[in-house]
Parts: sequence; C-alpha cells; structure tokens
Amino acid sequence: MMERPRILAFDIFGTVVDWHGSIAREVDAMKLGVGGAEFALAWRAGYQPAMQRVRSAELGWTRIDELHRMILDDLLPRFEITHLDETQKRHLNRVWHRLDPWPDAVEGITRLKSRHVVCTLSNGNIGLLTDMAKRAGLPWDCILSAEVFRAYKPDPATYLGVAGTFDAAPQEVMLVAAHHDDLAAARGCGLLTAYIERPHEFGAARPKDVSPRAGNTLHCASLVALAEKLGC
Amino acid sequence: MMERPRILAFDIFGTVVDWHGSIAREVDAMKLGVGGAEFALAWRAGYQPAMQRVRSAELGWTRIDELHRMILDDLLPRFEITHLDETQKRHLNRVWHRLDPWPDAVEGITRLKSRHVVCTLSNGNIGLLTDMAKRAGLPWDCILSAEVFRAYKPDPATYLGVAGTFDAAPQEVMLVAAHHDDLAAARGCGLLTAYIERPHEFGAARPKDVSPRAGNTLHCASLVALAEKLGC
Repeated sequence: MMERPRILAFDIFGTVVDWHGSIAREVDAMKLGVGGAEFALAWRAGYQPAMQRVRSAELGWTRIDELHRMILDDLLPRFEITHLDETQKRHLNRVWHRLDPWPDAVEGITRLKSRHVVCTLSNGNIGLLTDMAKRAGLPWDCILSAEVFRAYKPDPATYLGVAGTFDAAPQEVMLVAAHHDDLAAARGCGLLTAYIERPHEFGAARPKDVSPRAGNTLHCASLVALAEKLGC
Repeated sequence: MMERPRILAFDIFGTVVDWHGSIAREVDAMKLGVGGAEFALAWRAGYQPAMQRVRSAELGWTRIDELHRMILDDLLPRFEITHLDETQKRHLNRVWHRLDPWPDAVEGITRLKSRHVVCTLSNGNIGLLTDMAKRAGLPWDCILSAEVFRAYKPDPATYLGVAGTFDAAPQEVMLVAAHHDDLAAARGCGLLTAYIERPHEFGAARPKDVSPRAGNTLHCASLVALAEKLGC
C-alpha cells in the first residue's frame, strides 16, 4: 500500500478541462466559416512547438497567453479568417481562459480537497488558470504553474518545484494527468502518478488510446474515481 | 467615482490574520515559561531585518519559513528556552502557517470574491499561505507571494507583478493592507489602495494608531466594511 500523497498536483488542459470541445463550440458559434473541431486541433498542434522555442531559449520566458496568440496569428490567415479586429482576436485568444471542465472535475477535486492539498501544475499561466478556476468553480488550494518556476513541463524544475513549494519529499506529491509523457517525467523525479482516462480529449471523432501503462501508481476513469480510490 | 478594481490583492500578516494573538496563544499553551505576547513581538521584530538581508543580497533568495526559523533559533536562547528538540522547533516555526483570521476576514473576502479576483500579496511563502488558507477557510482565487516574484515587498516587482500576472493595468489592482508603508509603495506603482484598521495588530495592550492618512483610495474598519464600500 502506498503512502497517501499529501499533495495532488493536476495537469489541466485535457485532464481537468475539455480544451477541444470548448474551443470547437466557441469557434463554431462565431460562424467564422471554419470547422471548430478542426480549428481547435490546429491551435493545439502549435502548442508543443511554441513551448519548445522557450525551452530551447530561442525565445526568452514567454507566457502561454502570448504563445497562444502567436499561434493564432499564424492560424487565422491559414484558415482564411481575415476580418477579425484586435479586440476580437484578443477575446478569441482568451478562450483558453474559458475552457469547460469535464463533468466529473468539480466533484472529484472538491472531494479530493477534503484530505489533500489540491493544486494545479500546468504550463498555462497563472492568470489563465485563475480565470478558468473562477469561471468553472474549480476549488484549488493553490494555483501553481510553469510561470512560477519559469520552466515548462516536462522540465524537472516544475515537478520538483511543487515538492519544494510545500517543503515535501517528491514521493509526497502525486501528479494527476491524462498524458503518459507528463506522468513519466514526474515519475522520473520521484513523484507518484495517477493516469486519468480522457478518451475524447481530441474530440469524440478521434478517440484516444487510454489503456493502462506500467509505472503509474494509479489508473482511473475519472477524477471522481480517483477520489474513491483515495478514500475521499 | 473610481473605476472598480478588477483585482484585490491582500496583505496577510496583520491585515487578514492575527499573527500576534495566534502566536501568543500557542506559545502560552506550550508553557515554556515565557510570555506568549512578548515572544510574538520579539519574533515579529526580526522579520523586517531578516528580509532586509535578502533585499540587500547579503542572503540569496530565502523563503519566509527559513527566515522565521533563523529568527527563532536566535530567540530561543535569548528567552532561555533550551529543551525543544528539532521536531518541536519545526512545529513551532510552522505556527505562522496556523494563524487565525480576524473575525471579519472570511466573510469579507467571500463577499469580495463575488465581484473581484481576490488574491494574496504577502511576503509569506506559497506553502505557508496555502496551509493558512486551507485551515482558516480563506477562499482565495489565487495565492501570489513574494516567492512568485522573487522579491520582497515593498519592491515594485511585487505590486507590478500582480498587475502583470493578470494582464492588468496597475490601476485595475487594489492593494488591501493594514500598513501605510505597504500601501504607499503600491500607490507609487499606480495601484489603488485600501487601508484596513487593525488597532490590535500588536495586541490589545499596545493599540496602534489607525487614523486615516491622505492618499489611500479607501479607509475601512474591516474587510466586511470594504465589501460594503465596493457594493459586494
């Protein structure tokens, strides 16, 4: 039996909130003449390459809000969207602050909060995560972000940064995520890991393989299932 | 009529929580043979000098938890307390994580949260502020700290850091504090300011002058009074 982790650190995009569905719905509602689902996938596809420019020091420290905007400014002409003014572009870019949680997220996190410190550990910036939490009712004890550690996951400074923030040993922290690469990097730093199944992260039309992999401490169908496994 | 501030950033020690009363009570309960009130004042008296060693770069970046411990290690022999073991010293040092809120704090912040982003802006470290909030039920949207900005108040990087975190202009942020020097530094950066009267910050036996000073945007008897002034 594992020790109960004192701190649960949650990945956000895809794990706690449905970025694909939220962006697809908002883009479709804007009637831009493009498919929202396709637009969401293209925007997200720019995410890792943009962060890689920061990781490689081609760019200095740059928040995700700004990286999202750089990707958007590249996408709009590719999708032949030419009529948005600056105010509309700024509003659209902040759709990442307005992502809807998966249906189990608020209940699961609320239950987990009763016996654990629950915090974010996202590459999203602090302002984005704060706006999202306030709108969606996500009851974090603390918002931690790559922005606090000035490094993007999977840099060890992020996972070890959570432990350091709470004066904890790595094995007192569990990373909760829907992505095996994030979990593997956390495990490499000594953290416990919980994989959450999000088969429709990329949309119902593109189901994702969510089968268990060796190495994770827990494998759960939802955040409510994680709460049950941890006795919350 | 001022613009409504989008973000309220709260000083913590003395403004939201009663450090003096909380520490005095805990030290008295330990029956160490010293007066809790006197011990609390002596511990707090070491606070600004310790931060000054960081500000002056005599020390590298050091969290308040560690500064509190350095001060405590100096205080214990001065008060002729020689029998505490390491576990007891660690526990006592973390009394700063267990400070009780002033009676109006939870209600005031909860009401203000309905129409504003409410965050901390304290020299206390993130882990300390998170533990405190969880224990006391302080419903922050976000915990910001000198630790995020790697600078102690009154460094402008802290006040402007709050605005930058939320992509806000300085005048969209209001600092809420019981200390005129903190508020004056925030005002110098363009923030709005609300002074909160805490006449017994240093104990009922040592009442503090809480008369209004020119320059503050608002002057309030409590955090509930601030909520009422802001229509929350």
